[in-house]
Amino acid sequence: MKLRTQIAFVSLAVMLSAPALAQFAKPEDAIKYRKSALFVMQQNFSRVAAMAGGKAPFDAKVAADSAAVAEYMSKLPWVAFGDGTDKGDTRAKPEIWKEMGKFKEYSEKMQVEMAKLATAAKSGNLDAIKSAVTATGGSCKTCHDAYRKD
Amino acid sequence: MKLRTQIAFVSLAVMLSAPALAQFAKPEDAIKYRKSALFVMQQNFSRVAAMAGGKAPFDAKVAADSAAVAEYMSKLPWVAFGDGTDKGDTRAKPEIWKEMGKFKEYSEKMQVEMAKLATAAKSGNLDAIKSAVTATGGSCKTCHDAYRKD
Repeated sequence: MKLRTQIAFVSLAVMLSAPALAQFAKPEDAIKYRKSALFVMQQNFSRVAAMAGGKAPFDAKVAADSAAVAEYMSKLPWVAFGDGTDKGDTRAKPEIWKEMGKFKEYSEKMQVEMAKLATAAKSGNLDAIKSAVTATGGSCKTCHDAYRKD
Repeated sequence: MKLRTQIAFVSLAVMLSAPALAQFAKPEDAIKYRKSALFVMQQNFSRVAAMAGGKAPFDAKVAADSAAVAEYMSKLPWVAFGDGTDKGDTRAKPEIWKEMGKFKEYSEKMQVEMAKLATAAKSGNLDAIKSAVTATGGSCKTCHDAYRKD
């Protein structure tokens, strides 16, 4: 392997792993960060889901605002799953760091579904919101079933 | 007072207090929500502050991205300071609910400063970032000194 190719490979490896570490002072901060971002997302998503499921009265503005926040939050947790953040106050299974490609795929699927939900909520169409809530909730569950401890 | 005026006053009072409650299933959720949002904000702000203070190498893109997230997060916690969320796992002083006007003023001041920081970080001008970090940090401290327990 030529030196330039080797450097390219090393750079790629650094790009894929280092930024997540560099962003946090210590692993505990990263763990708390992803849990915090996911909680803010979940609270907003659940508000819309309650409306979709008839457990709360439908308020189009609250649904649209909440789904927009949930979409934004859906992008934040992933940088905090860097190396060395698999142990501590976390329910994240160690499989995440062995199957990072699959984990990333699941997280991206969720972000796509959450973006669709935000679009549906902005439209104010309750049927569209219901479908999007089901799809988004499914994408959460797929990842939790595989990668979150009970 | 005419009935219509009375209704207007009651509606205003409900607008000012009720939505915060309606958004959360229980007070603990509201407390966890505001702490989570503030933590995500603080982590992003601190990253930029470390660069401004020479404690981390300046990376214009990371600074701009982090400040943008911090600005977004700065808008979220306030809805979670509704009535009944003064007790529990919180360092929020009870004075907040007695001086909601002043607390709101402080929180809005911080949001203004955080928005200025995001603008400065987007520009990539480190001197502008340094000034904005100082102003934003000051607005955090003013509110913490008045309304957060040690």
